[in-house]
Amino acid sequence: MDIRIDAGRLRMDIEALAGFGRDPKGGISRPSFSRADLEARAWLKDRIAGAGLACREDGAGNIFGRLDGPGKTVMAGSHIDTVLNGGMFDGAVGVLAALECLRRIKEEKLPLAKALETASFTDEEGNLVGDFLGSRAFLGLLDGEALRRERTQFGPLLAEVLEGTGFTIEGILEAHIGRPDLEAYLELHIEQGSYLDDEGVPVGVVEAISGKRYLLGSFAGAASHAGTTPLELRRDAFLGLADMALRSTRHVATHHYGAMVTIGKVAVHPGSFSIVPGRVEFSLDYRSSSLEVLRDLDRELAEIAEDVAATRGLSFAAKLMDTTEPVLVPERLLGVLEGECGRLGVPFLRLGSGAGHDAQILASACDAGMIFIPSPDGASHSPEEAIRWDDLEKGANVLLGALVKLAT
Amino acid sequence: MDIRIDAGRLRMDIEALAGFGRDPKGGISRPSFSRADLEARAWLKDRIAGAGLACREDGAGNIFGRLDGPGKTVMAGSHIDTVLNGGMFDGAVGVLAALECLRRIKEEKLPLAKALETASFTDEEGNLVGDFLGSRAFLGLLDGEALRRERTQFGPLLAEVLEGTGFTIEGILEAHIGRPDLEAYLELHIEQGSYLDDEGVPVGVVEAISGKRYLLGSFAGAASHAGTTPLELRRDAFLGLADMALRSTRHVATHHYGAMVTIGKVAVHPGSFSIVPGRVEFSLDYRSSSLEVLRDLDRELAEIAEDVAATRGLSFAAKLMDTTEPVLVPERLLGVLEGECGRLGVPFLRLGSGAGHDAQILASACDAGMIFIPSPDGASHSPEEAIRWDDLEKGANVLLGALVKLAT
Repeated sequence: MDIRIDAGRLRMDIEALAGFGRDPKGGISRPSFSRADLEARAWLKDRIAGAGLACREDGAGNIFGRLDGPGKTVMAGSHIDTVLNGGMFDGAVGVLAALECLRRIKEEKLPLAKALETASFTDEEGNLVGDFLGSRAFLGLLDGEALRRERTQFGPLLAEVLEGTGFTIEGILEAHIGRPDLEAYLELHIEQGSYLDDEGVPVGVVEAISGKRYLLGSFAGAASHAGTTPLELRRDAFLGLADMALRSTRHVATHHYGAMVTIGKVAVHPGSFSIVPGRVEFSLDYRSSSLEVLRDLDRELAEIAEDVAATRGLSFAAKLMDTTEPVLVPERLLGVLEGECGRLGVPFLRLGSGAGHDAQILASACDAGMIFIPSPDGASHSPEEAIRWDDLEKGANVLLGALVKLAT
Repeated sequence: MDIRIDAGRLRMDIEALAGFGRDPKGGISRPSFSRADLEARAWLKDRIAGAGLACREDGAGNIFGRLDGPGKTVMAGSHIDTVLNGGMFDGAVGVLAALECLRRIKEEKLPLAKALETASFTDEEGNLVGDFLGSRAFLGLLDGEALRRERTQFGPLLAEVLEGTGFTIEGILEAHIGRPDLEAYLELHIEQGSYLDDEGVPVGVVEAISGKRYLLGSFAGAASHAGTTPLELRRDAFLGLADMALRSTRHVATHHYGAMVTIGKVAVHPGSFSIVPGRVEFSLDYRSSSLEVLRDLDRELAEIAEDVAATRGLSFAAKLMDTTEPVLVPERLLGVLEGECGRLGVPFLRLGSGAGHDAQILASACDAGMIFIPSPDGASHSPEEAIRWDDLEKGANVLLGALVKLAT
């Protein structure tokens, strides 16, 4: 049956959700379990109930809206949390487009061969203790020890952040109990890059989501006086990092085109203009849509670091902080999504996702696919993040068509 | 006349002074105008008076002990302030060896053809508002506006640090009024490098003191998503700094052997593992004993930075924070110092000083020279800083001999 979303209603929902967590410093700051997030949750549950869906919130704060049906569950969703000073579309469009789709299916009283659920997963952005807290909890993939031990980026422990919210670490660890058996998961999201915008195409069908490694590394040398230590006698930890940064980037660019490597966080010690750095700590983030490339990089980047250390009289150490594996979207889902683009006359391109998404976690339990809409100028995780409303309408109709196809 | 210092008395003075400002975190923390420094000042003035010298403290807190004589003044000194968690010898040995020399000359009632003065200059270490506050004040080289405007490394303005100490900015700016006419200045100091220690020689005669530039620079590019921004489209400010660090070091090492360049202080923004750095701020410190090399580096390092910025789509900016010119010690003083080493049978080497010293500032008003004693393992500005007492005895006797030669 040929049904379409109500684009005006979806836009009103997105604009209403953007009212929670506006930051005086710009954009939206709505990390999970903040006051703004708790208010946004109440609003979302109200909208789900208002659409006549069965609303459920699990122990991790994941919020679902269910249209019952026989057999397994076809799920669509994303997240409503944001980075600090983020945009109003990242995550929100996926949750609210899914809600709009189920609302339309319910209004049209389509006969279902499967159950349908919308999902809003907690802390996709990893403001607390690593990315994808909610979807990992939903699949029972969390390490209770780590949740209890690690500090959130805001300083306190997770348990302290949860105080007074009604959520607990025990509840998060038990969130996966009794979850529905999944048939497929679809997620609409903004691209967070400029490929679709540069190409002038309104919809992207994601064929692969990059896997990621996030390490904290350090080089240790010897702090010494900047005026009296000859260059050739120095064990300058910062020069080691500079060498590592340039060599890693050159290596990835020449041997693994399309993969990414980033050093985004750097601390130099002791950090005085007149003292040769004795120690540096840094983040190393690398990503690829190919598991083979990612495994090559695990070995090759460590070799580069060890070689830099050996050449420069330094020692190198690293700790793996987070890892996600690359996901290939199954041909079956690509076929459904591209079939709907064709049926609706929506131009599309296949592309990879360099950013991580809940879909990547869901892929360990069922077929998972993603629809991207353009990010004008590629702006992401910033107040400048934007969409075009007619791109969203096209993307949401592709999602609706695919859900109807999968569930009826 | 052949007189010698009392090495035991000098050691007792040094150990007594080290009692002020012991830091529970290690070493000595005695920045100028701290409580520990005010107590140390009182002790030093008492020791000067006890030696029968005329004690004077000027408006900048410089402390002098005078043995009157006809004609110009021959001065010897250094500083008693320390960096945070510094050692007990840097500065202190120079002030207290000079005091011991004048004490011995007074005890021996040597007839003087010149006046003699010991000096202890305020804030040589630049804990407050740039290096050499006291010696610059003594010579009337300070900028009152800057003193009023700039914050100390501890946060408050200089005027706030001075509250309750009896010192004022006006007093500092007027410290040079009525200062004695100088014939020469000598300073005994630990080397702060390992050259003498490596060579096994107890005394160094400094032939040049490096000049220095200290700049704060920045590269600005564009922050973007570490997973979605292809390497070739990035404007990664940290890679710019990495390139700058390696190219600057290679340039100095190959074209200006013996000069120094150091990037010791780095801040990367926004500083998240998953965001390509959009901005870095860094210190750039470079030094040479040749004014010509220093001026070449002013131009060449700026060219490297501009070239890095142009190549990588970044913008570069820099602000000069501090500058001192190189000083060549006049042959006359080298002759006197090396003559005394010969007379006393003390092995010596000529060397350059990569670190800055008050002698550099005094050199704008008179002939200025320095005697170094070894820093075992080159430790400096740390609790591990050390001397050998018999090296100090040799160095102090060279100082005493030179003062006698210059003033009698």
